[in-house]
Amino acid sequence: MSGAPSTDPAGHAAVAERDAVGPAFDRLWAALEPVGTDPTGGYRRLAYAPPELELRAWFAAEARARSLDVHEDRAGNLWAWWGDPTAGDALVTGSHLDSVRRGGAFDGPLGVVSGLLAVDVLRARGVVPSRPVAVAAFADEEGARFGVACAGSRLLTGQLDPAHALALTDDDGVTYAAALRASGRDPADLGPDAEVVPSIGTYVELHVEQGRALDGLGAAVGVASAIRAHGRWRFDLAGRPDHAGTTRLEDRDDPMLAHARTILAAREAATAHGGLATVGRVQIEPNGVNAIPARVRTWLDARADEEASVRAIVADVAAAAGVGPVEESWTPRTDLDAALRDRLAARLGGAPVLATGAGHDAGILALAGIPTAMLFVRNPTGVSHAPEEHAGRDDCLTGVVALADVLADLLDDAAGVR
Amino acid sequence: MSGAPSTDPAGHAAVAERDAVGPAFDRLWAALEPVGTDPTGGYRRLAYAPPELELRAWFAAEARARSLDVHEDRAGNLWAWWGDPTAGDALVTGSHLDSVRRGGAFDGPLGVVSGLLAVDVLRARGVVPSRPVAVAAFADEEGARFGVACAGSRLLTGQLDPAHALALTDDDGVTYAAALRASGRDPADLGPDAEVVPSIGTYVELHVEQGRALDGLGAAVGVASAIRAHGRWRFDLAGRPDHAGTTRLEDRDDPMLAHARTILAAREAATAHGGLATVGRVQIEPNGVNAIPARVRTWLDARADEEASVRAIVADVAAAAGVGPVEESWTPRTDLDAALRDRLAARLGGAPVLATGAGHDAGILALAGIPTAMLFVRNPTGVSHAPEEHAGRDDCLTGVVALADVLADLLDDAAGVR
Repeated sequence: MSGAPSTDPAGHAAVAERDAVGPAFDRLWAALEPVGTDPTGGYRRLAYAPPELELRAWFAAEARARSLDVHEDRAGNLWAWWGDPTAGDALVTGSHLDSVRRGGAFDGPLGVVSGLLAVDVLRARGVVPSRPVAVAAFADEEGARFGVACAGSRLLTGQLDPAHALALTDDDGVTYAAALRASGRDPADLGPDAEVVPSIGTYVELHVEQGRALDGLGAAVGVASAIRAHGRWRFDLAGRPDHAGTTRLEDRDDPMLAHARTILAAREAATAHGGLATVGRVQIEPNGVNAIPARVRTWLDARADEEASVRAIVADVAAAAGVGPVEESWTPRTDLDAALRDRLAARLGGAPVLATGAGHDAGILALAGIPTAMLFVRNPTGVSHAPEEHAGRDDCLTGVVALADVLADLLDDAAGVR
Repeated sequence: MSGAPSTDPAGHAAVAERDAVGPAFDRLWAALEPVGTDPTGGYRRLAYAPPELELRAWFAAEARARSLDVHEDRAGNLWAWWGDPTAGDALVTGSHLDSVRRGGAFDGPLGVVSGLLAVDVLRARGVVPSRPVAVAAFADEEGARFGVACAGSRLLTGQLDPAHALALTDDDGVTYAAALRASGRDPADLGPDAEVVPSIGTYVELHVEQGRALDGLGAAVGVASAIRAHGRWRFDLAGRPDHAGTTRLEDRDDPMLAHARTILAAREAATAHGGLATVGRVQIEPNGVNAIPARVRTWLDARADEEASVRAIVADVAAAAGVGPVEESWTPRTDLDAALRDRLAARLGGAPVLATGAGHDAGILALAGIPTAMLFVRNPTGVSHAPEEHAGRDDCLTGVVALADVLADLLDDAAGVR
């Protein structure tokens, strides 16, 4: 495509295309806006809970309205196919619909909406795909309900054992299996999908940036280079439940003390080993003001450029916790496809290339050997996983056109390349 | 009643009466057993949530089956009247039906069940009450849902401002007002009840012991002397929500660090000031593994023999938290009615007299100037607010007969005094 005209997002063709897609973007975004608002602010769209199921239905309806064939794989991920899924070497874009608790509006849905709209743009350009195209909505990317991030893409690619996943529980003691059943799914079906994985030729995920790098560079869109090594560990701190008002200090076995030491150790270890460590999630039983807890579950999120640093952080925190960590997820440092990355950056007129500390389904697919790339859309607040997470409308539309551009380029379809 | 025969619980009359009340006890207990089981063990019967509403309906039905007149006061407490409520100087017994999360079966319901059965025993003895008798089921004693213990008795006696109560929220952001509305009550009605309070002449609450003192003394039943000074404080620790994987340590404002310091300070302060201090309840927003929290609410329960010690503990913890405490409840040291205490202990053949560190509606009524006493039933595990909380069937039946004995004594009815 070296002979293609420039697609500088500021160019006239891009501006016209952006304006054209605006009303459809507004319509899709307005449909998402009321779904799954969190009483404490932002959104709470947990996997297989009613708001997330409503978003799945919305996705399927939007896909069908575009005459895309909707399919749910054995891992719970949704696929909207433009062309024959069995033809192989599919070009896939998408993201996820679930959110963390009190999450932002953009993390996930922006990539799904952009994928659907990019199909519209390509069709408006008259593109006839040389290979199948799909928009995917991956299940349970955040892991906010059951604790394992990217559960849908991990299950799909065999990186998460279905038996392990089915036994995971949410805060109310509901298992993954029970949540699947409650939503009309058969837990026995959960697992890798032998038909889907080999059919994926390339995956490009668009995502709101989770930092302020693009804002600092004055760029609306960037391209990802790598995902840092990261994982989640759970410390199960057991104590003896008792009445806070009647049990002498010397008779107590209070797991909150180890919990407190775990939090402080996480910060110290991150500083010592040059990584990030966070305790953001805690589960206390019974969680009563006047009840010495029976158990405290304290989760650790740790990340660093290299695996050795992450492992050193976890070891330090485990020493403070006094119990061994349960590894709930682990993702090694993942370098996204270099050739693809360079092609996208060039196609977007020299877009900035950024590493990220956040995990994504794109990283899971890359680990499964699928050539994978990511586009980031500028987030002026830099905030992520919180209601303040934001992307401007113009930047979102620029992202849609940029996604359409790189898909057209990868389809090698001259009609798609302005 | 100095001329009355001994009511030593091991005596023949008591044994026969205990055996006679056994089947009714078993039937009432069996009805309670399946209601509001907690998925993590024990019971979760939170105020105005479905299981607690089911228990209220059960109480009303059992009261009506005994031809007692059921009335709900403006604070949400239930009253089952034997005799004319307007006659004044009522003799009231009872307890509460709600539980903490993952609570035991006995804390609360044992007193309500024993109250109903004591009425049966008195009637079987042919007692004709010289003044009205009531069995009360106080609302929201544990405060496990909205954070304020003894909310029903505090509201009733004007020790809790209804406007303050209505604005309290549970973990899902549901206000006390909304919970009342959802259960068919009008929040505007909430408040002190000018008809009920002056009508109470004496209150005797039977409760499972929350320690092992009676077990050590080999006694099935004891009498309370005082309730230690105690309260609940909330520390609202604010931070800036951000993504755990993308926010540099130096850019973070993570409230979990202050939370951890608060927990450790509570234990140190309790040791230093000779009291008890516990962090048993925490609320984290958004509580996601990969989310630096926006806010952590950390609750402190602190108790001691004297107010000054409790205040010193709270001041130390506040210094560690870095924010001022919000006092959610406060109960000064409460000496129960000394004459009543001595009369009950004597009536029960010299039952042991114990102080307690746990708060009770009895303490709230005592603060309101009502002569109040408490009976404790032996708890061989000593565990409270946990599934292991226990009282043996024989001890429960002994408690029922003991309660009937002291009620008969207080009714000054010769027929009631064997």
